[in-house]
Amino acid sequence: MTVSTPSVNKLVIIGIGLIGGSLATGLKQRGGCREVIGIARNQQTCADAVRLGVVDRAYDNLEAIAGELTAGDVIFISVPTLSVDLVLSQVRELISPDVTITDGASVKGSVQKAVERIYGDVPAQFVPGHPIAGSEKSGVTAANPDLYVNHRVILTPSAETGAAHLQRVTTMWQTVGAEVLEMSVAEHDDVLAATSHLPHAIAYSLVDTLAQDIGNPNIFRYAAGGFRDFTRIASSDPIMWHDIMRANKDSVLTALDLFIDNLMRLRSSIESEDSDYLLEVFTRAKTARDHFTNMLTKES
Amino acid sequence: MTVSTPSVNKLVIIGIGLIGGSLATGLKQRGGCREVIGIARNQQTCADAVRLGVVDRAYDNLEAIAGELTAGDVIFISVPTLSVDLVLSQVRELISPDVTITDGASVKGSVQKAVERIYGDVPAQFVPGHPIAGSEKSGVTAANPDLYVNHRVILTPSAETGAAHLQRVTTMWQTVGAEVLEMSVAEHDDVLAATSHLPHAIAYSLVDTLAQDIGNPNIFRYAAGGFRDFTRIASSDPIMWHDIMRANKDSVLTALDLFIDNLMRLRSSIESEDSDYLLEVFTRAKTARDHFTNMLTKES
Repeated sequence: MTVSTPSVNKLVIIGIGLIGGSLATGLKQRGGCREVIGIARNQQTCADAVRLGVVDRAYDNLEAIAGELTAGDVIFISVPTLSVDLVLSQVRELISPDVTITDGASVKGSVQKAVERIYGDVPAQFVPGHPIAGSEKSGVTAANPDLYVNHRVILTPSAETGAAHLQRVTTMWQTVGAEVLEMSVAEHDDVLAATSHLPHAIAYSLVDTLAQDIGNPNIFRYAAGGFRDFTRIASSDPIMWHDIMRANKDSVLTALDLFIDNLMRLRSSIESEDSDYLLEVFTRAKTARDHFTNMLTKES
Repeated sequence: MTVSTPSVNKLVIIGIGLIGGSLATGLKQRGGCREVIGIARNQQTCADAVRLGVVDRAYDNLEAIAGELTAGDVIFISVPTLSVDLVLSQVRELISPDVTITDGASVKGSVQKAVERIYGDVPAQFVPGHPIAGSEKSGVTAANPDLYVNHRVILTPSAETGAAHLQRVTTMWQTVGAEVLEMSVAEHDDVLAATSHLPHAIAYSLVDTLAQDIGNPNIFRYAAGGFRDFTRIASSDPIMWHDIMRANKDSVLTALDLFIDNLMRLRSSIESEDSDYLLEVFTRAKTARDHFTNMLTKES
Protein backbone atom coordinates (compact mmCIF):
# COMPACT_ATOMS: atom_id res chain seq x y z
CA MET A 1 0.00 0.00 0.00
CA THR A 2 1.56 3.31 -1.04
CA VAL A 3 0.07 6.49 0.43
CA SER A 4 0.22 9.89 -1.23
CA THR A 5 0.05 11.85 2.05
CA PRO A 6 2.26 10.21 4.68
CA SER A 7 0.28 9.26 7.81
CA VAL A 8 3.41 9.90 9.83
CA ASN A 9 5.58 12.99 9.67
CA LYS A 10 8.73 12.06 11.57
CA LEU A 11 9.10 8.44 12.71
CA VAL A 12 11.44 8.06 15.69
CA ILE A 13 12.70 4.50 16.31
CA ILE A 14 14.05 4.01 19.83
CA GLY A 15 16.13 0.83 19.68
CA ILE A 16 17.26 0.14 16.12
CA GLY A 17 17.14 -3.64 15.76
CA LEU A 18 15.26 -6.06 13.52
CA ILE A 19 11.78 -4.87 14.58
CA GLY A 20 12.38 -1.12 14.58
CA GLY A 21 14.70 -1.20 11.58
CA SER A 22 12.20 -3.18 9.50
CA LEU A 23 9.41 -0.71 10.28
CA ALA A 24 11.75 2.18 9.40
CA THR A 25 12.81 0.84 6.00
CA GLY A 26 9.34 -0.54 5.21
CA LEU A 27 7.59 2.76 5.93
CA LYS A 28 10.19 4.92 4.14
CA GLN A 29 10.15 2.69 1.07
CA ARG A 30 6.35 3.00 0.82
CA GLY A 31 6.26 6.77 1.37
CA GLY A 32 4.53 6.35 4.73
CA CYS A 33 6.62 8.98 6.57
CA ARG A 34 8.69 12.04 5.76
CA GLU A 35 11.77 11.18 7.80
CA VAL A 36 13.08 8.42 10.06
CA ILE A 37 15.21 9.23 13.08
CA GLY A 38 16.96 6.46 15.00
CA ILE A 39 17.89 6.49 18.68
CA ALA A 40 20.29 3.84 20.01
CA ARG A 41 22.61 3.81 23.02
CA ASN A 42 25.36 2.21 20.98
CA GLN A 43 27.06 4.71 18.63
CA GLN A 44 28.14 1.90 16.29
CA THR A 45 24.48 0.92 15.86
CA CYS A 46 23.68 4.56 15.03
CA ALA A 47 26.46 4.68 12.44
CA ASP A 48 25.41 1.31 10.93
CA ALA A 49 21.75 2.36 10.71
CA VAL A 50 22.63 5.54 8.79
CA ARG A 51 25.17 3.75 6.58
CA LEU A 52 22.65 1.02 5.69
CA GLY A 53 19.98 3.63 4.89
CA VAL A 54 17.67 2.25 7.61
CA VAL A 55 17.31 5.73 9.16
CA ASP A 56 17.97 9.27 7.89
CA ARG A 57 19.61 10.45 11.12
CA ALA A 58 20.63 8.73 14.34
CA TYR A 59 21.52 9.86 17.87
CA ASP A 60 22.66 8.10 21.02
CA ASN A 61 20.19 10.09 23.16
CA LEU A 62 16.59 11.26 22.94
CA GLU A 63 17.36 14.79 24.20
CA ALA A 64 19.01 15.61 20.88
CA ILE A 65 15.69 15.63 19.01
CA ALA A 66 12.99 15.81 21.70
CA GLY A 67 12.39 19.54 21.08
CA GLU A 68 11.63 19.16 17.38
CA LEU A 69 8.83 16.56 17.79
CA THR A 70 5.19 17.61 17.57
CA ALA A 71 1.70 16.43 16.50
CA GLY A 72 1.90 14.03 13.53
CA ASP A 73 5.20 12.54 14.64
CA VAL A 74 5.36 8.97 15.95
CA ILE A 75 7.78 7.46 18.45
CA PHE A 76 8.14 3.66 18.15
CA ILE A 77 9.76 2.06 21.19
CA SER A 78 11.43 -1.21 20.16
CA VAL A 79 13.87 -2.00 22.94
CA PRO A 80 13.98 -5.32 24.89
CA THR A 81 10.83 -5.71 27.03
CA LEU A 82 12.50 -5.00 30.37
CA SER A 83 14.17 -1.82 29.06
CA VAL A 84 10.82 -0.22 28.17
CA ASP A 85 10.57 1.31 31.69
CA LEU A 86 13.74 3.33 31.37
CA VAL A 87 12.82 4.57 27.90
CA LEU A 88 9.31 5.55 29.01
CA SER A 89 10.69 7.66 31.88
CA GLN A 90 12.76 9.68 29.39
CA VAL A 91 9.84 9.95 26.98
CA ARG A 92 7.54 11.28 29.71
CA GLU A 93 10.13 13.86 30.71
CA LEU A 94 11.07 15.06 27.21
CA ILE A 95 8.22 14.48 24.75
CA SER A 96 5.14 16.66 24.09
CA PRO A 97 1.70 15.08 24.75
CA ASP A 98 0.84 15.78 21.09
CA VAL A 99 3.34 13.22 19.81
CA THR A 100 1.98 9.72 19.18
CA ILE A 101 3.82 6.99 21.08
CA THR A 102 3.62 3.28 20.37
CA ASP A 103 5.75 0.23 21.05
CA GLY A 104 6.51 -3.27 19.81
CA ALA A 105 6.98 -5.18 23.06
CA SER A 106 5.88 -8.82 23.02
CA VAL A 107 4.19 -8.50 26.42
CA LYS A 108 1.58 -5.79 26.90
CA GLY A 109 0.71 -6.20 30.62
CA SER A 110 4.19 -5.21 31.75
CA VAL A 111 4.21 -2.21 29.40
CA GLN A 112 0.83 -1.07 30.70
CA LYS A 113 2.06 -1.33 34.29
CA ALA A 114 5.17 0.67 33.42
CA VAL A 115 3.12 3.38 31.69
CA GLU A 116 0.72 3.64 34.65
CA ARG A 117 3.61 3.82 37.10
CA ILE A 118 5.44 6.48 35.10
CA TYR A 119 2.52 8.59 33.81
CA GLY A 120 0.03 7.93 36.62
CA ASP A 121 -2.45 6.66 34.03
CA VAL A 122 -2.31 5.58 30.36
CA PRO A 123 -2.05 8.86 28.40
CA ALA A 124 -4.17 9.41 25.25
CA GLN A 125 -1.01 9.62 23.14
CA PHE A 126 0.11 6.06 23.96
CA VAL A 127 -1.03 3.21 21.70
CA PRO A 128 0.36 -0.15 22.92
CA GLY A 129 1.15 -2.50 20.04
CA HIS A 130 2.82 -5.74 19.09
CA PRO A 131 3.81 -6.73 15.56
CA ILE A 132 3.67 -10.55 15.39
CA ALA A 133 6.68 -10.97 13.18
CA GLY A 134 10.28 -11.69 13.78
CA SER A 135 13.13 -13.90 12.92
CA GLU A 136 15.83 -15.79 14.75
CA LYS A 137 18.09 -13.09 13.32
CA SER A 138 18.41 -9.84 15.21
CA GLY A 139 20.05 -6.45 14.91
CA VAL A 140 19.89 -3.58 12.45
CA THR A 141 21.66 -5.56 9.71
CA ALA A 142 18.67 -7.96 9.66
CA ALA A 143 16.19 -5.10 8.94
CA ASN A 144 13.78 -6.10 6.17
CA PRO A 145 11.26 -3.66 4.61
CA ASP A 146 8.85 -6.56 3.88
CA LEU A 147 9.00 -8.16 7.33
CA TYR A 148 5.42 -7.14 8.17
CA VAL A 149 3.73 -7.98 4.85
CA ASN A 150 0.83 -10.38 5.58
CA HIS A 151 1.70 -10.40 9.27
CA ARG A 152 -0.57 -9.34 12.11
CA VAL A 153 -0.10 -6.40 14.43
CA ILE A 154 -2.11 -6.49 17.63
CA LEU A 155 -2.96 -3.13 19.26
CA THR A 156 -4.28 -3.07 22.83
CA PRO A 157 -5.80 0.43 23.21
CA SER A 158 -7.72 1.40 26.34
CA ALA A 159 -10.75 3.66 26.75
CA GLU A 160 -8.32 6.56 27.28
CA THR A 161 -6.43 6.10 24.01
CA GLY A 162 -6.89 9.07 21.64
CA ALA A 163 -8.75 8.22 18.42
CA ALA A 164 -6.35 10.19 16.19
CA HIS A 165 -3.30 8.50 17.78
CA LEU A 166 -4.89 5.08 17.33
CA GLN A 167 -5.75 5.85 13.70
CA ARG A 168 -2.23 7.06 12.96
CA VAL A 169 -0.63 3.91 14.37
CA THR A 170 -3.16 1.68 12.59
CA THR A 171 -2.49 3.36 9.22
CA MET A 172 1.27 3.17 9.80
CA TRP A 173 1.16 -0.63 10.21
CA GLN A 174 -1.25 -1.10 7.31
CA THR A 175 1.14 0.90 5.13
CA VAL A 176 3.90 -1.67 5.68
CA GLY A 177 1.52 -4.47 4.73
CA ALA A 178 0.28 -5.69 8.12
CA GLU A 179 -3.24 -6.63 9.21
CA VAL A 180 -4.10 -4.67 12.39
CA LEU A 181 -6.23 -6.32 15.11
CA GLU A 182 -7.33 -4.99 18.49
CA MET A 183 -7.76 -6.96 21.69
CA SER A 184 -7.44 -6.51 25.44
CA VAL A 185 -4.06 -6.56 27.17
CA ALA A 186 -4.99 -9.73 29.09
CA GLU A 187 -6.15 -11.62 26.00
CA HIS A 188 -3.04 -10.57 24.09
CA ASP A 189 -0.72 -11.83 26.82
CA ASP A 190 -2.54 -15.18 27.15
CA VAL A 191 -2.63 -15.75 23.39
CA LEU A 192 1.05 -14.90 22.91
CA ALA A 193 2.06 -17.03 25.91
CA ALA A 194 0.48 -20.04 24.18
CA THR A 195 1.49 -19.46 20.56
CA SER A 196 4.92 -17.89 20.99
CA HIS A 197 6.38 -17.79 24.50
CA LEU A 198 5.60 -21.44 25.31
CA PRO A 199 7.11 -22.75 22.02
CA HIS A 200 10.27 -20.72 22.67
CA ALA A 201 10.59 -22.11 26.22
CA ILE A 202 10.14 -25.64 24.85
CA ALA A 203 12.64 -25.18 21.99
CA TYR A 204 15.31 -23.76 24.30
CA SER A 205 14.73 -26.56 26.81
CA LEU A 206 14.84 -29.30 24.15
CA VAL A 207 18.13 -28.09 22.66
CA ASP A 208 19.54 -27.70 26.18
CA THR A 209 18.46 -31.26 27.04
CA LEU A 210 20.39 -32.59 24.04
CA ALA A 211 23.42 -30.35 24.59
CA GLN A 212 23.60 -30.83 28.34
CA ASP A 213 21.70 -33.85 29.66
CA ILE A 214 22.07 -36.56 26.99
CA GLY A 215 25.49 -38.16 27.41
CA ASN A 216 26.49 -38.17 23.71
CA PRO A 217 28.79 -35.40 22.46
CA ASN A 218 27.96 -36.24 18.81
CA ILE A 219 24.21 -36.17 19.32
CA PHE A 220 23.56 -33.23 16.94
CA ARG A 221 25.44 -35.04 14.15
CA TYR A 222 22.53 -37.41 13.71
CA ALA A 223 19.76 -34.83 13.69
CA ALA A 224 17.96 -34.24 10.40
CA GLY A 225 16.15 -31.34 8.74
CA GLY A 226 13.02 -31.75 10.88
CA PHE A 227 15.13 -31.04 13.96
CA ARG A 228 16.58 -27.93 12.33
CA ASP A 229 13.09 -26.51 11.65
CA PHE A 230 11.82 -27.57 15.04
CA THR A 231 14.60 -25.81 16.92
CA ARG A 232 15.03 -22.70 14.73
CA ILE A 233 13.47 -20.47 17.41
CA ALA A 234 16.09 -21.65 19.93
CA SER A 235 18.55 -19.48 17.98
CA SER A 236 16.64 -16.36 19.06
CA ASP A 237 18.19 -13.63 21.19
CA PRO A 238 18.57 -14.93 24.80
CA ILE A 239 18.22 -11.50 26.45
CA MET A 240 15.02 -10.72 24.57
CA TRP A 241 13.51 -14.05 25.60
CA HIS A 242 14.69 -13.77 29.18
CA ASP A 243 12.84 -10.44 29.36
CA ILE A 244 9.67 -11.87 27.81
CA MET A 245 9.56 -14.89 30.16
CA ARG A 246 9.89 -12.56 33.15
CA ALA A 247 7.46 -9.92 31.87
CA ASN A 248 4.73 -12.45 30.99
CA LYS A 249 5.47 -14.79 33.89
CA ASP A 250 1.89 -15.62 34.92
CA SER A 251 0.52 -16.36 31.44
CA VAL A 252 3.67 -18.31 30.50
CA LEU A 253 3.40 -20.47 33.64
CA THR A 254 -0.28 -21.17 32.91
CA ALA A 255 0.52 -22.23 29.34
CA LEU A 256 3.56 -24.26 30.46
CA ASP A 257 1.48 -26.13 33.04
CA LEU A 258 -1.16 -27.03 30.44
CA PHE A 259 1.59 -28.31 28.15
CA ILE A 260 3.35 -30.27 30.89
CA ASP A 261 0.03 -31.93 31.81
CA ASN A 262 -0.59 -32.84 28.17
CA LEU A 263 2.96 -34.19 27.77
CA MET A 264 2.70 -36.24 30.98
CA ARG A 265 -0.50 -37.86 29.65
CA LEU A 266 1.34 -38.65 26.43
CA ARG A 267 4.23 -40.08 28.44
CA SER A 268 1.86 -42.33 30.39
CA SER A 269 0.24 -43.56 27.20
CA ILE A 270 3.64 -44.50 25.74
CA GLU A 271 4.53 -46.31 28.97
CA SER A 272 1.22 -48.19 29.13
CA GLU A 273 1.22 -48.79 25.34
CA ASP A 274 -2.18 -47.10 25.02
CA SER A 275 -2.46 -47.11 21.23
CA ASP A 276 -5.90 -45.47 21.21
CA TYR A 277 -4.68 -42.43 23.13
CA LEU A 278 -1.49 -42.07 21.05
CA LEU A 279 -3.39 -42.22 17.76
CA GLU A 280 -6.05 -39.84 19.09
CA VAL A 281 -3.51 -37.17 20.09
CA PHE A 282 -1.34 -37.52 16.96
CA THR A 283 -4.37 -37.42 14.64
CA ARG A 284 -5.97 -34.45 16.46
CA ALA A 285 -2.67 -32.54 16.39
CA LYS A 286 -2.06 -33.27 12.71
CA THR A 287 -5.59 -32.12 11.83
CA ALA A 288 -5.22 -28.87 13.81
CA ARG A 289 -1.77 -28.18 12.39
CA ASP A 290 -2.80 -28.90 8.77
CA HIS A 291 -5.83 -26.61 9.23
CA PHE A 292 -3.58 -23.84 10.57
CA THR A 293 -1.17 -24.21 7.63
CA ASN A 294 -4.02 -24.07 5.09
CA MET A 295 -5.24 -20.89 6.79
CA LEU A 296 -1.78 -19.28 6.44
CA THR A 297 -1.43 -20.43 2.82
CA LYS A 298 -4.77 -18.91 1.82
CA GLU A 299 -3.73 -15.57 3.28
CA SER A 300 -0.37 -15.19 1.63
CA MET B 1 27.25 -40.42 -8.13
CA THR B 2 26.45 -42.34 -11.32
CA VAL B 3 27.71 -45.93 -11.52
CA SER B 4 28.50 -47.75 -14.75
CA THR B 5 27.77 -51.21 -13.35
CA PRO B 6 24.67 -51.15 -11.14
CA SER B 7 25.40 -52.40 -7.61
CA VAL B 8 21.86 -53.72 -7.47
CA ASN B 9 20.21 -55.93 -10.07
CA LYS B 10 16.51 -55.90 -9.14
CA LEU B 11 15.40 -53.59 -6.34
CA VAL B 12 12.19 -54.73 -4.65
CA ILE B 13 10.44 -52.07 -2.56
CA ILE B 14 7.96 -53.52 -0.08
CA GLY B 15 5.71 -50.62 0.97
CA ILE B 16 5.75 -47.90 -1.70
CA GLY B 17 5.57 -44.63 0.23
CA LEU B 18 7.82 -41.60 0.55
CA ILE B 19 10.86 -43.54 1.80
CA GLY B 20 10.69 -46.53 -0.55
CA GLY B 21 9.50 -44.49 -3.53
CA SER B 22 12.32 -41.96 -3.11
CA LEU B 23 14.95 -44.73 -3.03
CA ALA B 24 13.35 -46.32 -6.12
CA THR B 25 13.32 -43.15 -8.25
CA GLY B 26 16.69 -41.96 -6.92
CA LEU B 27 18.45 -45.25 -7.69
CA LYS B 28 16.84 -45.69 -11.12
CA GLN B 29 17.66 -42.13 -12.14
CA ARG B 30 21.32 -42.65 -11.26
CA GLY B 31 21.62 -46.06 -12.98
CA GLY B 32 22.12 -47.82 -9.64
CA CYS B 33 19.82 -50.77 -10.44
CA ARG B 34 18.47 -52.58 -13.49
CA GLU B 35 14.82 -52.72 -12.47
CA VAL B 36 12.55 -51.61 -9.62
CA ILE B 37 9.63 -53.79 -8.52
CA GLY B 38 7.06 -52.42 -6.06
CA ILE B 39 4.98 -54.46 -3.62
CA ALA B 40 2.02 -52.81 -1.88
CA ARG B 41 -1.15 -54.25 -0.37
CA ASN B 42 -3.24 -51.49 -1.88
CA GLN B 43 -3.80 -51.98 -5.62
CA GLN B 44 -4.34 -48.26 -6.14
CA THR B 45 -0.87 -47.61 -4.70
CA CYS B 46 0.55 -50.18 -7.15
CA ALA B 47 -1.21 -48.49 -10.06
CA ASP B 48 -0.08 -44.99 -8.95
CA ALA B 49 3.53 -46.13 -8.50
CA VAL B 50 3.67 -47.52 -12.06
CA ARG B 51 1.82 -44.53 -13.53
CA LEU B 52 4.19 -42.07 -11.80
CA GLY B 53 7.24 -44.02 -13.04
CA VAL B 54 8.38 -44.70 -9.46
CA VAL B 55 8.58 -48.47 -10.16
CA ASP B 56 8.76 -50.53 -13.33
CA ARG B 57 6.28 -53.18 -12.13
CA ALA B 58 4.09 -53.51 -9.05
CA TYR B 59 2.21 -56.34 -7.33
CA ASP B 60 -0.07 -56.60 -4.34
CA ASN B 61 1.75 -59.70 -3.06
CA LEU B 62 5.32 -60.91 -2.71
CA GLU B 63 4.55 -64.42 -4.01
CA ALA B 64 4.19 -63.01 -7.52
CA ILE B 65 7.92 -62.32 -7.87
CA ALA B 66 9.60 -64.31 -5.06
CA GLY B 67 10.78 -67.04 -7.43
CA GLU B 68 12.66 -64.71 -9.76
CA LEU B 69 14.87 -63.13 -7.07
CA THR B 70 18.49 -64.23 -6.63
CA ALA B 71 21.97 -63.03 -5.61
CA GLY B 72 22.50 -59.37 -6.56
CA ASP B 73 18.87 -58.44 -5.95
CA VAL B 74 17.91 -56.26 -2.96
CA ILE B 75 14.65 -56.21 -1.02
CA PHE B 76 14.01 -52.92 0.80
CA ILE B 77 11.32 -53.16 3.47
CA SER B 78 9.74 -49.73 4.03
CA VAL B 79 6.46 -50.41 5.77
CA PRO B 80 5.36 -48.82 9.08
CA THR B 81 7.57 -50.06 11.95
CA LEU B 82 4.99 -52.37 13.51
CA SER B 83 4.18 -54.03 10.15
CA VAL B 84 7.79 -55.19 9.67
CA ASP B 85 7.02 -58.45 11.54
CA LEU B 86 4.37 -59.56 9.09
CA VAL B 87 6.51 -58.72 6.07
CA LEU B 88 9.55 -60.52 7.51
CA SER B 89 7.53 -63.73 8.00
CA GLN B 90 6.63 -63.72 4.32
CA VAL B 91 10.18 -62.88 3.30
CA ARG B 92 11.61 -65.78 5.34
CA GLU B 93 9.13 -68.17 3.76
CA LEU B 94 9.51 -67.04 0.15
CA ILE B 95 12.93 -65.48 -0.43
CA SER B 96 16.27 -67.20 -1.17
CA PRO B 97 19.11 -66.68 1.36
CA ASP B 98 21.20 -65.24 -1.51
CA VAL B 99 19.01 -62.16 -1.84
CA THR B 100 20.11 -59.08 0.15
CA ILE B 101 17.46 -57.75 2.52
CA THR B 102 17.50 -54.34 4.18
CA ASP B 103 14.93 -52.03 5.73
CA GLY B 104 14.25 -48.39 6.56
CA ALA B 105 12.53 -48.65 9.93
CA SER B 106 13.19 -45.77 12.35
CA VAL B 107 13.69 -48.16 15.27
CA LYS B 108 16.28 -50.92 14.95
CA GLY B 109 15.83 -52.80 18.24
CA SER B 110 12.29 -53.87 17.39
CA VAL B 111 13.37 -54.99 13.91
CA GLN B 112 16.25 -57.00 15.34
CA LYS B 113 13.88 -58.73 17.79
CA ALA B 114 11.46 -59.52 14.96
CA VAL B 115 14.25 -60.95 12.80
CA GLU B 116 15.56 -63.10 15.67
CA ARG B 117 12.04 -64.34 16.45
CA ILE B 118 11.28 -65.18 12.81
CA TYR B 119 14.68 -66.46 11.60
CA GLY B 120 15.99 -67.82 14.91
CA ASP B 121 19.06 -65.57 14.49
CA VAL B 122 20.02 -62.58 12.32
CA PRO B 123 20.77 -64.10 8.88
CA ALA B 124 23.85 -62.98 6.90
CA GLN B 125 21.59 -61.61 4.14
CA PHE B 126 19.91 -59.05 6.44
CA VAL B 127 21.42 -55.54 6.75
CA PRO B 128 19.33 -53.38 9.12
CA GLY B 129 19.28 -49.73 8.03
CA HIS B 130 17.69 -46.36 8.65
CA PRO B 131 17.82 -43.43 6.22
CA ILE B 132 17.59 -40.24 8.32
CA ALA B 133 15.45 -38.32 5.92
CA GLY B 134 11.80 -37.68 5.59
CA SER B 135 9.18 -35.08 5.28
CA GLU B 136 5.85 -34.30 6.86
CA LYS B 137 4.47 -35.42 3.49
CA SER B 138 3.90 -39.12 2.93
CA GLY B 139 2.79 -41.53 0.24
CA VAL B 140 4.08 -42.49 -3.19
CA THR B 141 3.11 -39.12 -4.70
CA ALA B 142 5.69 -37.47 -2.40
CA ALA B 143 8.54 -39.65 -3.76
CA ASN B 144 11.61 -37.52 -4.48
CA PRO B 145 14.75 -38.87 -6.22
CA ASP B 146 16.94 -36.37 -4.32
CA LEU B 147 15.50 -37.02 -0.85
CA TYR B 148 18.70 -38.72 0.36
CA VAL B 149 21.28 -36.32 -1.09
CA ASN B 150 23.52 -35.10 1.78
CA HIS B 151 21.48 -37.09 4.29
CA ARG B 152 22.79 -39.81 6.56
CA VAL B 153 21.89 -43.48 6.48
CA ILE B 154 22.72 -45.47 9.59
CA LEU B 155 23.33 -49.21 9.18
CA THR B 156 23.42 -51.45 12.26
CA PRO B 157 25.08 -54.67 11.03
CA SER B 158 25.97 -57.46 13.47
CA ALA B 159 28.92 -59.86 13.48
CA GLU B 160 26.77 -62.25 11.41
CA THR B 161 26.04 -59.79 8.60
CA GLY B 162 27.58 -60.92 5.29
CA ALA B 163 30.28 -58.57 3.94
CA ALA B 164 28.95 -58.67 0.36
CA HIS B 165 25.42 -57.88 1.52
CA LEU B 166 26.66 -54.99 3.66
CA GLN B 167 28.74 -53.63 0.78
CA ARG B 168 25.81 -53.84 -1.65
CA VAL B 169 23.51 -51.89 0.69
CA THR B 170 26.24 -49.32 1.47
CA THR B 171 26.90 -48.70 -2.23
CA MET B 172 23.15 -48.47 -2.93
CA TRP B 173 22.71 -45.63 -0.42
CA GLN B 174 25.89 -43.86 -1.53
CA THR B 175 24.60 -43.97 -5.12
CA VAL B 176 21.53 -41.90 -4.15
CA GLY B 177 23.77 -39.32 -2.45
CA ALA B 178 23.68 -40.40 1.20
CA GLU B 179 26.53 -40.66 3.71
CA VAL B 180 26.52 -44.15 5.26
CA LEU B 181 27.42 -44.60 8.95
CA GLU B 182 27.49 -47.73 11.08
CA MET B 183 26.63 -48.00 14.77
CA SER B 184 25.14 -50.48 17.23
CA VAL B 185 21.41 -51.06 17.44
CA ALA B 186 21.30 -49.68 21.00
CA GLU B 187 23.20 -46.50 20.14
CA HIS B 188 21.02 -45.93 17.08
CA ASP B 189 17.81 -46.19 19.09
CA ASP B 190 19.05 -43.87 21.85
CA VAL B 191 20.31 -41.26 19.37
CA LEU B 192 17.11 -41.27 17.34
CA ALA B 193 14.95 -41.15 20.46
CA ALA B 194 16.69 -37.89 21.41
CA THR B 195 16.99 -36.18 18.02
CA SER B 196 13.79 -37.34 16.31
CA HIS B 197 11.28 -39.28 18.42
CA LEU B 198 11.37 -36.84 21.36
CA PRO B 199 10.88 -33.74 19.14
CA HIS B 200 7.93 -35.42 17.43
CA ALA B 201 6.30 -36.28 20.79
CA ILE B 202 6.79 -32.67 21.92
CA ALA B 203 5.45 -31.14 18.69
CA TYR B 204 2.32 -33.33 18.73
CA SER B 205 1.75 -32.54 22.40
CA LEU B 206 2.23 -28.79 21.94
CA VAL B 207 -0.24 -28.57 19.04
CA ASP B 208 -2.69 -30.74 20.99
CA THR B 209 -2.33 -28.46 24.03
CA LEU B 210 -3.30 -25.46 21.91
CA ALA B 211 -6.09 -27.26 20.04
CA GLN B 212 -7.54 -29.00 23.07
CA ASP B 213 -6.52 -27.50 26.42
CA ILE B 214 -6.27 -23.73 25.83
CA GLY B 215 -9.78 -22.30 25.93
CA ASN B 216 -9.49 -20.08 22.83
CA PRO B 217 -10.95 -21.36 19.55
CA ASN B 218 -9.07 -18.68 17.58
CA ILE B 219 -5.70 -19.44 19.14
CA PHE B 220 -3.99 -20.53 15.90
CA ARG B 221 -5.05 -17.27 14.22
CA TYR B 222 -2.42 -15.41 16.20
CA ALA B 223 0.46 -17.79 15.61
CA ALA B 224 3.30 -16.58 13.39
CA GLY B 225 5.86 -18.19 11.09
CA GLY B 226 8.03 -19.40 13.97
CA PHE B 227 5.13 -21.50 15.18
CA ARG B 228 4.65 -22.96 11.71
CA ASP B 229 8.29 -24.10 11.53
CA PHE B 230 8.25 -25.32 15.11
CA THR B 231 5.20 -27.51 14.59
CA ARG B 232 5.87 -28.75 11.03
CA ILE B 233 6.69 -32.26 12.28
CA ALA B 234 3.25 -32.46 13.99
CA SER B 235 1.83 -32.83 10.47
CA SER B 236 3.61 -36.20 10.12
CA ASP B 237 1.73 -39.48 9.66
CA PRO B 238 0.06 -40.45 12.99
CA ILE B 239 0.20 -44.22 12.40
CA MET B 240 3.89 -44.14 11.57
CA TRP B 241 4.63 -42.17 14.75
CA HIS B 242 2.37 -44.31 16.89
CA ASP B 243 4.40 -47.31 15.74
CA ILE B 244 7.73 -45.61 16.44
CA MET B 245 6.73 -44.52 19.97
CA ARG B 246 5.69 -48.08 20.78
CA ALA B 247 8.67 -49.76 19.10
CA ASN B 248 11.25 -47.51 20.79
CA LYS B 249 9.36 -47.16 24.05
CA ASP B 250 12.28 -47.48 26.49
CA SER B 251 14.63 -45.03 24.74
CA VAL B 252 11.78 -42.57 24.13
CA LEU B 253 10.76 -42.63 27.80
CA THR B 254 14.38 -42.04 28.86
CA ALA B 255 14.71 -39.04 26.53
CA LEU B 256 11.26 -37.71 27.52
CA ASP B 257 12.16 -37.88 31.21
CA LEU B 258 15.40 -35.97 30.64
CA PHE B 259 13.44 -33.31 28.73
CA ILE B 260 10.66 -33.08 31.34
CA ASP B 261 13.31 -32.61 34.07
CA ASN B 262 14.99 -29.86 32.06
CA LEU B 263 11.65 -28.16 31.36
CA MET B 264 10.61 -28.35 35.03
CA ARG B 265 13.88 -26.63 36.01
CA LEU B 266 13.13 -23.93 33.44
CA ARG B 267 9.59 -23.61 34.80
CA SER B 268 10.93 -23.15 38.35
CA SER B 269 13.38 -20.51 37.20
CA ILE B 270 10.55 -18.54 35.51
CA GLU B 271 8.46 -18.80 38.67
CA SER B 272 11.31 -17.73 40.97
CA GLU B 273 12.50 -15.08 38.46
CA ASP B 274 15.96 -16.65 38.38
CA SER B 275 17.49 -14.49 35.62
CA ASP B 276 20.89 -16.17 35.81
CA TYR B 277 19.44 -19.62 35.12
CA LEU B 278 17.18 -18.39 32.29
CA LEU B 279 20.02 -16.58 30.53
CA GLU B 280 22.34 -19.56 31.06
CA VAL B 281 19.93 -22.05 29.43
CA PHE B 282 18.89 -19.73 26.57
CA THR B 283 22.49 -18.82 25.77
CA ARG B 284 23.72 -22.43 25.97
CA ALA B 285 20.87 -23.61 23.73
CA LYS B 286 21.43 -20.83 21.20
CA THR B 287 25.14 -21.65 21.04
CA ALA B 288 24.49 -25.38 20.54
CA ARG B 289 21.80 -24.76 17.94
CA ASP B 290 23.88 -22.22 15.97
CA HIS B 291 26.81 -24.66 16.02
CA PHE B 292 24.54 -27.44 14.69
CA THR B 293 23.23 -25.20 11.90
CA ASN B 294 26.74 -24.17 10.86
CA MET B 295 27.68 -27.85 10.72
CA LEU B 296 24.73 -28.60 8.39
CA THR B 297 25.47 -25.55 6.22
CA LYS B 298 29.09 -26.55 5.72
CA GLU B 299 28.00 -30.00 4.55
CA SER B 300 25.43 -29.01 1.97
